[in-house]
Amino acid sequence: MIKIGIVGGTGYTGVELLRILATHPQAQITAITSRKEDGLPVSEMYPSLRGRVDIAFSAPDKANLKECDVVFFATPHGVAMAQAPELLAAGVKVIDLAADFRMKNVAEFEKWYGIPHTCTEVLDEAVYGLPELNRAAIKTARVVGNPGCYPTTMQLGFSPLLKAGIIDAGNLIADCKSGVSGAGRKAELGLLFSETSDTFKAYGVSGHRHTPETIEQLQRISKDPVGLLFTPHLVPMIRGMHSTLYARLNTEISNEDLQALFENAYKDEVFVDVLPFGSHPETRSTRASNMLRLALHRPNNGNTVVILVVQDNLVKGASGQAVQCMNLMFGLEEGTGLMHVPVLP
Amino acid sequence: MIKIGIVGGTGYTGVELLRILATHPQAQITAITSRKEDGLPVSEMYPSLRGRVDIAFSAPDKANLKECDVVFFATPHGVAMAQAPELLAAGVKVIDLAADFRMKNVAEFEKWYGIPHTCTEVLDEAVYGLPELNRAAIKTARVVGNPGCYPTTMQLGFSPLLKAGIIDAGNLIADCKSGVSGAGRKAELGLLFSETSDTFKAYGVSGHRHTPETIEQLQRISKDPVGLLFTPHLVPMIRGMHSTLYARLNTEISNEDLQALFENAYKDEVFVDVLPFGSHPETRSTRASNMLRLALHRPNNGNTVVILVVQDNLVKGASGQAVQCMNLMFGLEEGTGLMHVPVLP
Amino acid sequence: MIKIGIVGGTGYTGVELLRILATHPQAQITAITSRKEDGLPVSEMYPSLRGRVDIAFSAPDKANLKECDVVFFATPHGVAMAQAPELLAAGVKVIDLAADFRMKNVAEFEKWYGIPHTCTEVLDEAVYGLPELNRAAIKTARVVGNPGCYPTTMQLGFSPLLKAGIIDAGNLIADCKSGVSGAGRKAELGLLFSETSDTFKAYGVSGHRHTPETIEQLQRISKDPVGLLFTPHLVPMIRGMHSTLYARLNTEISNEDLQALFENAYKDEVFVDVLPFGSHPETRSTRASNMLRLALHRPNNGNTVVILVVQDNLVKGASGQAVQCMNLMFGLEEGTGLMHVPVLP
Amino acid sequence: MIKIGIVGGTGYTGVELLRILATHPQAQITAITSRKEDGLPVSEMYPSLRGRVDIAFSAPDKANLKECDVVFFATPHGVAMAQAPELLAAGVKVIDLAADFRMKNVAEFEKWYGIPHTCTEVLDEAVYGLPELNRAAIKTARVVGNPGCYPTTMQLGFSPLLKAGIIDAGNLIADCKSGVSGAGRKAELGLLFSETSDTFKAYGVSGHRHTPETIEQLQRISKDPVGLLFTPHLVPMIRGMHSTLYARLNTEISNEDLQALFENAYKDEVFVDVLPFGSHPETRSTRASNMLRLALHRPNNGNTVVILVVQDNLVKGASGQAVQCMNLMFGLEEGTGLMHVPVLP
Repeated sequence: MIKIGIVGGTGYTGVELLRILATHPQAQITAITSRKEDGLPVSEMYPSLRGRVDIAFSAPDKANLKECDVVFFATPHGVAMAQAPELLAAGVKVIDLAADFRMKNVAEFEKWYGIPHTCTEVLDEAVYGLPELNRAAIKTARVVGNPGCYPTTMQLGFSPLLKAGIIDAGNLIADCKSGVSGAGRKAELGLLFSETSDTFKAYGVSGHRHTPETIEQLQRISKDPVGLLFTPHLVPMIRGMHSTLYARLNTEISNEDLQALFENAYKDEVFVDVLPFGSHPETRSTRASNMLRLALHRPNNGNTVVILVVQDNLVKGASGQAVQCMNLMFGLEEGTGLMHVPVLP
Repeated sequence: MIKIGIVGGTGYTGVELLRILATHPQAQITAITSRKEDGLPVSEMYPSLRGRVDIAFSAPDKANLKECDVVFFATPHGVAMAQAPELLAAGVKVIDLAADFRMKNVAEFEKWYGIPHTCTEVLDEAVYGLPELNRAAIKTARVVGNPGCYPTTMQLGFSPLLKAGIIDAGNLIADCKSGVSGAGRKAELGLLFSETSDTFKAYGVSGHRHTPETIEQLQRISKDPVGLLFTPHLVPMIRGMHSTLYARLNTEISNEDLQALFENAYKDEVFVDVLPFGSHPETRSTRASNMLRLALHRPNNGNTVVILVVQDNLVKGASGQAVQCMNLMFGLEEGTGLMHVPVLP
Repeated sequence: MIKIGIVGGTGYTGVELLRILATHPQAQITAITSRKEDGLPVSEMYPSLRGRVDIAFSAPDKANLKECDVVFFATPHGVAMAQAPELLAAGVKVIDLAADFRMKNVAEFEKWYGIPHTCTEVLDEAVYGLPELNRAAIKTARVVGNPGCYPTTMQLGFSPLLKAGIIDAGNLIADCKSGVSGAGRKAELGLLFSETSDTFKAYGVSGHRHTPETIEQLQRISKDPVGLLFTPHLVPMIRGMHSTLYARLNTEISNEDLQALFENAYKDEVFVDVLPFGSHPETRSTRASNMLRLALHRPNNGNTVVILVVQDNLVKGASGQAVQCMNLMFGLEEGTGLMHVPVLP
Repeated sequence: MIKIGIVGGTGYTGVELLRILATHPQAQITAITSRKEDGLPVSEMYPSLRGRVDIAFSAPDKANLKECDVVFFATPHGVAMAQAPELLAAGVKVIDLAADFRMKNVAEFEKWYGIPHTCTEVLDEAVYGLPELNRAAIKTARVVGNPGCYPTTMQLGFSPLLKAGIIDAGNLIADCKSGVSGAGRKAELGLLFSETSDTFKAYGVSGHRHTPETIEQLQRISKDPVGLLFTPHLVPMIRGMHSTLYARLNTEISNEDLQALFENAYKDEVFVDVLPFGSHPETRSTRASNMLRLALHRPNNGNTVVILVVQDNLVKGASGQAVQCMNLMFGLEEGTGLMHVPVLP
């Protein structure tokens, strides 16, 4: 059994980790920290876990995180970088669901997150936790930076085209839509039901921190300089993310070959599902599961490819992907504990 | 492995059976019928099942249902009674998710469902499939009438009080609220998003068919004649059912003793969770799981007990309960394949 | 033109007052206060008001409220009682949308609201602002306590029966459901979209402050002591309130006579609509309007009457009713500026 | 008073016409047709109209539409073209909310709508009913083709840039999102609450009939050939439309000049609101009103302009715009009866 610690388990990625790990056959949750909720049984905050997760929150200093095999950070940005060195020194692996270990470019990190990076030596060895594009490195990693939710969809959607070198890398557009849980569990007016229900809006259009993360990763697989216009929107639904990706072809290619390109790219993947050409995937077809589904379109048979990508932002976009990384880091089958069938309706 | 047939798998209870059975370790789905969708892979109608359920719908006459060990009817009322005799004769067990085998009183059935009951000999042997109140009979049953969603909450909420004989059985009130999926997957104007979202209403207040079903069952455990006022409402949510039950005490009893009465009644139950006295259970604490949770209140310390009961109408209120019955009928652990952790948020 | 001040205009009842008053032919909004948003144009916080409401928030001390004809308090409990005396002394009328002037019983107020009542002399002259039951007093009032949202539905639903003396006044049950905006615009976790969407729950079942307010008013029209069990629930919708009221008849009466009782009671009312017997009103049939609709049922032709009452909690349940009171206090037609057609779908 | 007939008043654009016209000071609804609902009072289908619209549906042959001053067609495509000639001959003006009179290119119409155009002589004189771009022609029109909902946002968003000739007209992208009411009031499985709530998807990505309509209109104001990629999506909300428009600049221009371009274009418009540069308009800021709001962005100060456009799809996107056209056709103030303040929250 893998002994698991969770730092900051009161948010949505935290409770989602608990939901997944509660039925993971190799997982034993040994500590979950919350300064504020010290002593409170997890199931009192989340009655959905009554009878399934019997642990209580403990203050960070009381939790023996160093005795864990792996610690997940489901915390705000900046927490993992402060605690990772000590854990790593004690032989504990680290998976950060925030941004501390996502971007190698420290200046960009500091610009977009507004805090200094205090742990660049760990950052240097950190591995970007997108298994489909970085599996080998994750298997041997001690510390993983779990991808952002939007970047997961953009990378899995654009990468087959970029690798093939058949699109104009400098003019990518990603028009993305997320359920409200993506904004986290924060007591903010803008996230109230009466503010977000029955309405729709964009946000961060002039610039969003998931742009540099995505560009850094896409650049690793593109010969040409990557340019990305990323527009996030807020959808009145709890879970779910839909990315509508636009790429300009720079060569002639048939729809059949386009489809084959994607099917080959993901033919061995458990969690990426390429739908038939021209399909319209719904976010609910992935709800509460680790699946990501995508489909290709070629409007008017022109030279623009439209890739539709859906996932559950809290699973493949966060906690599920983190467990997928853990499985790889500990030599388990990649799908262990992650084979939930999506909940529909 | 239990060979399973599903008749009428295109509705919500059908797809929910598939979601549950897809990961049930003893289940092998061998046939799923739909006259209209003959030949269509199930996963084309429900992309959530892609890669998980590989069977296609087949026309009823082509499906070799007699070779199954058990057949679930996820059909409109009247279908199971027509097909059950032949299946039973072939040694196949039957679980009907509709109302054909719920009520022993044929006259009441015919009055409320508007069709003649054509299979009263099977009805005579049929067992009411509420495991918590009828477990022994289910274990040996050949044919089970799976309870209605509302009746499940009303029975599990009222029965400890009725058994104890401490309430006025003739004046029960059940003010119940259901998510829209409870109305089924039907192309009706009244179920459209734009008709049911951001609004709330009661329906069937003057009389609803779940009243006689519930009274028949409650009467089995009550010495005094049962009188029940049942008011259903439609909530703008997909899944979830919340029943607010009112009962007048006819004796003095402390809140502690009331709570103990319920905790004892359900102390060995896997799927019934008695919350601390005065709690307010949310439907989402049971979402996509087979749990039913309830809590007791005693407003102003008066002589009325209020019981709050929540469940997922498609799981404990329908398909999960049906699988729970199947487990009992085949000698499996009652929770086999049903231990999903509720999806929250 | 009536010069109007609004204290505390950043919440939902505040912006709803602005929406209504912006097209009220006799209203001139001259001041709206917010300590925190001093100087901010109202339309920057609420872009829905761009081009329609040109005023800015001003700090309370800068607003010349004493030059208004009437001041609405759309504030937390306790604010109106602190400021009312000075305004009244200056000849300004006061309408409080909070609870300060609703209940004559000071002890009950202090028990339920947890603050001392510091202005009992104003409370003595305050008039309860439910026009349909208290019109004459409102017309001559200097200070009005605007009713709570739930109490409005309970009073208009029960009062014809209580006045006629044909129900058991001591055993009223009100099972009520409210949209989330009823909880106000507060940065609280429990009100987040991801916490309240796609779920349903009761709250305050053991006791809620709208119970004593309602009892106090109902007692005014009932010979017998009023007993009320009130159970509020939270519905995943923005606006709308649905009260399901249960009353036991203590006499024989036909359904026709029951219906006639209600139709007569409200035949001259602009804002109360008695639907045909056996109807199921939807909350959306009143959305964004000042209408309250109700319908009667007699399940199984028994001795319990069920009254279904719907309204928009922010209009007839709050700001619309306050403007209705203002119209009466200033000798205008009661419906002036309040004739919005409900928004459906 | 303008005598008004409505053909096909049972859908959402029909009931929205009624909501608006019920308080329009110059409107007198004299007939509303529905073959199926002949004799049914409108307010029985739509209780929101009780006491406000007293007319009943009448069968088409019984309604004296020729005695009207104007007839609105809130019908499926193909109905208006069949009835318009006779009405026009009788001196009745016609406003079609469907597509019969939107596109001058008959071949394109027939290709996308799948029906022959049987009334090309009326089509020849028909005027496209987008007042902000076609006001003069509307004023003198006898027959108006009311724009599609999506095309309204795309045209008002792109036209200032196209008129100025500063963008690459051949590579426009419109990523658009609509509330479910945009699909109409049809008994279809895909529009059920349980199918569309808590999920998000694109549809018609490979081709949608609003593309040729929009291109035809945009081409009228662009020197260069217009190319448009239009991707519609379905949002789990009732009303509201959000279009995210992408245009490549072909010249240097400051953000200030861009903003000024739009502010000048719409400075005299009652129903177009240009927000400050960099704003994120929400659909709810236009809910139930005829306002369209837009805002400009220039991500990373690059050469792509992003225009965010919001409207209520049933008002400015349909029935409100139709009444705006009617006002122009009858010489009224353009905003007559259309000055509803948006409903927020």
